[in-house]
Amino acid sequence: MIDIDQIRADTPAASRLAYLHNAGAALMPAPVVAAMKQHIDLESEIGGYAAADRESARLDAVYGSVARLLNAAPDEIALVENATVAWQMAFYALPFRKGDRILTAEAEYAANYVAFLQVAKRTGAVIDVVPSDASGELDVHALERMIDERAKLIAITWVPTNGGLVNPAAAIGRIARAHGIPYLLDACQAVGQMEVDVEAIGCDMLSATGRKFLRGPRGTGFLYVRRALLQQLEPPMIDHFAAPWVSRDEYQLRDDARRFETWENNYAARLGLGAAVDYALAIGIDPIEQRCRLLADRLRGGLAGIRGITIRDLGRAPGAIVSFTMEGYEADAIVRSAATAGITIGASDPASTRIDAEVRALPPVVRASPHYYNTEAEIDRLIGHLAGLAPR
Amino acid sequence: MIDIDQIRADTPAASRLAYLHNAGAALMPAPVVAAMKQHIDLESEIGGYAAADRESARLDAVYGSVARLLNAAPDEIALVENATVAWQMAFYALPFRKGDRILTAEAEYAANYVAFLQVAKRTGAVIDVVPSDASGELDVHALERMIDERAKLIAITWVPTNGGLVNPAAAIGRIARAHGIPYLLDACQAVGQMEVDVEAIGCDMLSATGRKFLRGPRGTGFLYVRRALLQQLEPPMIDHFAAPWVSRDEYQLRDDARRFETWENNYAARLGLGAAVDYALAIGIDPIEQRCRLLADRLRGGLAGIRGITIRDLGRAPGAIVSFTMEGYEADAIVRSAATAGITIGASDPASTRIDAEVRALPPVVRASPHYYNTEAEIDRLIGHLAGLAPR
Repeated sequence: MIDIDQIRADTPAASRLAYLHNAGAALMPAPVVAAMKQHIDLESEIGGYAAADRESARLDAVYGSVARLLNAAPDEIALVENATVAWQMAFYALPFRKGDRILTAEAEYAANYVAFLQVAKRTGAVIDVVPSDASGELDVHALERMIDERAKLIAITWVPTNGGLVNPAAAIGRIARAHGIPYLLDACQAVGQMEVDVEAIGCDMLSATGRKFLRGPRGTGFLYVRRALLQQLEPPMIDHFAAPWVSRDEYQLRDDARRFETWENNYAARLGLGAAVDYALAIGIDPIEQRCRLLADRLRGGLAGIRGITIRDLGRAPGAIVSFTMEGYEADAIVRSAATAGITIGASDPASTRIDAEVRALPPVVRASPHYYNTEAEIDRLIGHLAGLAPR
Repeated sequence: MIDIDQIRADTPAASRLAYLHNAGAALMPAPVVAAMKQHIDLESEIGGYAAADRESARLDAVYGSVARLLNAAPDEIALVENATVAWQMAFYALPFRKGDRILTAEAEYAANYVAFLQVAKRTGAVIDVVPSDASGELDVHALERMIDERAKLIAITWVPTNGGLVNPAAAIGRIARAHGIPYLLDACQAVGQMEVDVEAIGCDMLSATGRKFLRGPRGTGFLYVRRALLQQLEPPMIDHFAAPWVSRDEYQLRDDARRFETWENNYAARLGLGAAVDYALAIGIDPIEQRCRLLADRLRGGLAGIRGITIRDLGRAPGAIVSFTMEGYEADAIVRSAATAGITIGASDPASTRIDAEVRALPPVVRASPHYYNTEAEIDRLIGHLAGLAPR
């Protein structure tokens, strides 16, 4: 059970703000803030190296925490600066040749798509976008039909940035496994919001961020790489931590996923990430997921009754990102208007998910993303605020 | 003039510790710690995105501060996770073909050398190590003689990690410019310790860290790329910040050095870096450099009088890294012994600078690295401690 009073006491800003921007960067709970500030203090007291040495057990434990979150092993986890670096270190490690096909989805995130374009230009690989089904989810039957011997990667954003869509990650995983195609899953908006089990999904690589639904610090991310694939992947760039310099003309890649890391890191942020994962695990991902859906569905229910609002979410069972447009208002104007009422929401630009936005002719959309620490009353405040903007 | 009392008041740990480990990670001054903690607090009060928006002017100013430090322009600066990422983003952007030559120095840092090895394996490029002169500095005449049409990069660590050596960065720059060869300078141990003027040096790319002599946070680094070269370099990996997705099949690289960045960052650490640079600039790099040399020379003078100690520093005018070995003691044992006496120093392993260590048959060396905030009395404490270990 979620102890909402305790959780809100751990989130002091929640008493002042209706913070519904968790798909951007969530409010960090107090233990995350404390972990970072304490480590910064320790660094200033004994120096940055001694502080990392003294906290080495807690720093090591972060790998275990992330592994538990994903149902992976600690040696399959790399901790990096952000989700993009995590994703890049995996994607750019894959070998592509002319004519190789990268299969992706319509709502793929811009950061990933420009990397596809760069590698396509560099290698002659081809990007093939799997169409969506009538619900808006990636069409798994279409994916299956598109598989051939030139398909060398399936790379999908599980929960796209621009709305409630939850792509069928596990169904895609079954296809990837059946055909032996590497499967890279961008789980940036999924971790912390819903159960993420790399065994159940069947992905080979998974990237995610700390700052969104995990409620961790900015500037944190992680990569999971399945052990069986790990040994075959040479990182696109290496340093002496990833690959110790063992003799004059030879380096030796680490055996574990930390071959995708660099030596130097922001340890305060890492400890904050660990605290965030532990906080989520202590509450339980299942109750978190249920409450996220409850609040998001409540919001969708309220929006449906407001004149001029069009809900833009896709998929059979939308998650905690609620996207909509409102006649007569630019998305940014709604975000600003809500801010004046103490309600924090965001907007998503078509350039973040260009193909989906073109297919659906989307303008910038408003994005409201509740989390388990929000209350029904906060949802109703947003609904009430928007109703007040609507023509009568 | 350096106001040592004020500076030590800004560095509370200096009253408890003789902290001589600035080549590892320096003690951060109070404004750096405050900048980070205040931003973390702000993030927890209004959310990570709103906090970055509110501090956007100060965040932009960090580019200006780093640019002033280097005598560069703000649009020639990228802020990244660490010096290694800075160096990698430049190095891996360079095109190499079979037979192309990378010219480097004997004391090149392991992180860079394994990257040379990876690129050599990948492309057929060749690594050529420029010999040192009698003083131990890179031999600029030898470098000049080694230049031919296949020399495609000069990549040098200015101040190697394992001792006082200061390579002749500007003399190397004159050769690089005369022959039109790109010049990548690793200034990790130089920034914050001595004047770094990219115009005077003539380097095309320069990488550095925040945590060493700049006294900034761990997990911060920056890259300078000369504007003339910038436009020719496509980063090895890109996201939608480096290269906005402008139409379905097209990205457009940013015009400035931020094409080497990713979108998401640890903004608290960035503000800490900015505060550190501003703090150093307010004191003045010239007086900092003078005091660093004064204290390092005092230490070398004292060590020279202790039986069993061999100073390992190379070069005509060694900097603030003082390296030595002591008969009868492993380097780590000396580091631990000093720690029990409240003196923080470090050690450098041969694997960090393998070629130099092989040439000189170096074991692990003790590394003591004073900074301007240290006192003569602290230097004398270390000298006295080591004298106490020596045979009588």
